[in-house]
Amino acid sequence: MAWKGISDAVIRRLPIYLRVLEEVKGKEACISSHELGKRAGVRPALVRKDLAWFGEFGKQGVGYDVEFLQDELRKILNLDEPLHMALVGVGSLGHALARYNRRRFEKDPLFTIKLVALFDVKPELVGTYVDDVPIYSVEEIPRVVPENDIRLAIVTVPADVAQEATDALVAAGVKAILNFAPVKLDVPKDVHVANADLSLELQRLAYYIGAQHS
Amino acid sequence: MAWKGISDAVIRRLPIYLRVLEEVKGKEACISSHELGKRAGVRPALVRKDLAWFGEFGKQGVGYDVEFLQDELRKILNLDEPLHMALVGVGSLGHALARYNRRRFEKDPLFTIKLVALFDVKPELVGTYVDDVPIYSVEEIPRVVPENDIRLAIVTVPADVAQEATDALVAAGVKAILNFAPVKLDVPKDVHVANADLSLELQRLAYYIGAQHS
Repeated sequence: MAWKGISDAVIRRLPIYLRVLEEVKGKEACISSHELGKRAGVRPALVRKDLAWFGEFGKQGVGYDVEFLQDELRKILNLDEPLHMALVGVGSLGHALARYNRRRFEKDPLFTIKLVALFDVKPELVGTYVDDVPIYSVEEIPRVVPENDIRLAIVTVPADVAQEATDALVAAGVKAILNFAPVKLDVPKDVHVANADLSLELQRLAYYIGAQHS
Repeated sequence: MAWKGISDAVIRRLPIYLRVLEEVKGKEACISSHELGKRAGVRPALVRKDLAWFGEFGKQGVGYDVEFLQDELRKILNLDEPLHMALVGVGSLGHALARYNRRRFEKDPLFTIKLVALFDVKPELVGTYVDDVPIYSVEEIPRVVPENDIRLAIVTVPADVAQEATDALVAAGVKAILNFAPVKLDVPKDVHVANADLSLELQRLAYYIGAQHS
């Protein structure tokens, strides 16, 4: 499912609401925007505004039906069925992320994003596995991505080859990329990139070490 | 340095501007808000608004002095001198992040965030090294953190012990935390937490795989 013109800031909060709903499911049938906001770290008014983009989910004085809202959020986020993901660049970070994702997928039945293919340029890696996920040559992206209906990918290659890897993924049908390479990737308008650049995150955090916040 | 009341969204863009300035340094003496915005992926008006929070850096018709603005941004972000960082939880993700950070620090003289201590609970890890960074017992946090003037930390421990690790870091003087554990951490108001929860990032990205954006 997809809605036009909804800001990324709104989308960014939906998985947090989903996590809160999963925590309270089975304990409470309904949840107020106050409680949902408190657990998610979001103001209640903003919770109501965010959810109102997608329909009328709440009832005055009662709040949200936990299971119903959970189901709706899963549909909105395309998390109502298994979603196949690839990872390009099986260095130490790529390897760790691959294992992290597989563990999460195996342990949590509600985590539907499944890593199904890894890609690397190193001949000694191609044909081996991380857990039970095969490592293919990057040259096989055009075949493996559509064959496995992969539409989501993690990029953990060095900066100087990140655009090339991205171009191959996009040409093969990938629509969303989590990019760990410290470069801005150029993609067509129908493809979404999230930058998970750790250096930028740390540099941003450094601002706060001397801050007197209130 | 620290300014009151400046939103996190503004702070989040400063390291991106800094990276652009580092790219053009030596090639251009001045940069326009248009060029800076284009390279950073930010509207020129927003570039000017962001920077105006901190002073009058630009000149009408000329733009920003590259070296001057770079120096100012480094001061604002506390990146004008080496900054010591710790990492708690040397599992496969923690190990990969430790190596990633050290490489970056060694290769890039402008990357001033230096990982100086690792912490774990496993007796077989304590006393060993990742590259040349020592792994200490988590029980040594109260001693090692102040001794090394550590004010920034990465948390890569399992969810059920993340709060405990955070409490120890905060009590020892850490002011900013990059949290990879899939939990919301409670911290005092003068401590800043950034969540780098990969599961949330991927769930958010899943929204875009079916989207028709324009």
